Amino acid sequence: MTVQTLSISLATRGNADIHDITPTVERRIRECGIKQGIVTIFCPSSTSALTTIEHESGALNDFRRMFDELAPPSRHYDHNAAWGDGNGHSHIRAALLGASLCVPFVDGNLTLGTWQQIIYVDFDNRPRQRELILQVMGE
Amino acid sequence: MTVQTLSISLATRGNADIHDITPTVERRIRECGIKQGIVTIFCPSSTSALTTIEHESGALNDFRRMFDELAPPSRHYDHNAAWGDGNGHSHIRAALLGASLCVPFVDGNLTLGTWQQIIYVDFDNRPRQRELILQVMGE
Amino acid sequence: MTVQTLSISLATRGNADIHDITPTVERRIRECGIKQGIVTIFCPSSTSALTTIEHESGALNDFRRMFDELAPPSRHYDHNAAWGDGNGHSHIRAALLGASLCVPFVDGNLTLGTWQQIIYVDFDNRPRQRELILQVMGE
Repeated sequence: MTVQTLSISLATRGNADIHDITPTVERRIRECGIKQGIVTIFCPSSTSALTTIEHESGALNDFRRMFDELAPPSRHYDHNAAWGDGNGHSHIRAALLGASLCVPFVDGNLTLGTWQQIIYVDFDNRPRQRELILQVMGE
Repeated sequence: MTVQTLSISLATRGNADIHDITPTVERRIRECGIKQGIVTIFCPSSTSALTTIEHESGALNDFRRMFDELAPPSRHYDHNAAWGDGNGHSHIRAALLGASLCVPFVDGNLTLGTWQQIIYVDFDNRPRQRELILQVMGE
Repeated sequence: MTVQTLSISLATRGNADIHDITPTVERRIRECGIKQGIVTIFCPSSTSALTTIEHESGALNDFRRMFDELAPPSRHYDHNAAWGDGNGHSHIRAALLGASLCVPFVDGNLTLGTWQQIIYVDFDNRPRQRELILQVMGE
């Protein structure tokens, strides 16, 4: 059993920009040589989050609309009143969706479903350079 | 330290059908012989999800109503317009709730609260045969 | 590789009382001597939950308002009709946000972002004495 901590770099456009990170996660797991275990993917950020979804444009639009309704950018946020950065909606969306995702892998392959991808969602209101943590633990 | 990858099979009815998988997870952990560690439960599916709740019919009804309000089946979804399978609401509900859950165990027992159970929620719009991944890591 | 199961005790006031548990989690990880791995933080409770957020009062107010809108305390809940304890909203909020959070650490330091803290949210409708599970796995 061993643990390796890796990372992924991403340039994002913000405003619920969604990236399918599945191919990159799969490649890193194969390269690291651990065959069976879990990968913990973590966003060191308070305005972006992770989940899985079928990565097709219809489902992604529907997903974004749900967050536009839950936390519209245009209403009052106490965070914006205090800090003036206009991303109050980004903070609460990210806190609801979650910064951490654990996915098992076997024989070097993620145990994802056929129509299931790992997505990184940048809810911030401007382009960002992001770095995600990938921690692989197993044998 | 070791890792074992197991699975659970379930026949679900769809439409936010909820299964208490706690007894099955507990039994698999006892059988696998690992005493202390974490179990990562993972849905290899984009229309179903996992969480914990008090598994009593009132709380489950309230939980289903929340999702009926967040993502009603009957409105427009871009996913449905593109694919015609009518489960656009299922995809975004599952992505919000999350496909992965990690629960620690000690002396072969899950560290759940007295009134807390692990539930699998099938948000799809039809009956499915499902398989969940259980990955047990520890010593 | 080894695993240690620790705990954190908290006195909470209920009604979406939010505690920044980051300093306590960091201290426990440093004390336990494991340098690199994941900490799984788990609420053995069905009315409280965990996530990460920028722990400043504006964002916390905005976060609480989102849950007040998603699941207002004052409406009908089948859970309350059956059990009379008035915390139906607490159960579904906690189930949505999630009882489990995994955070990687490296050289004894959590891989959190600069403006990102780990919070424990007690959604119950009264003060409680709480105990959280911290399971540290790594080498």
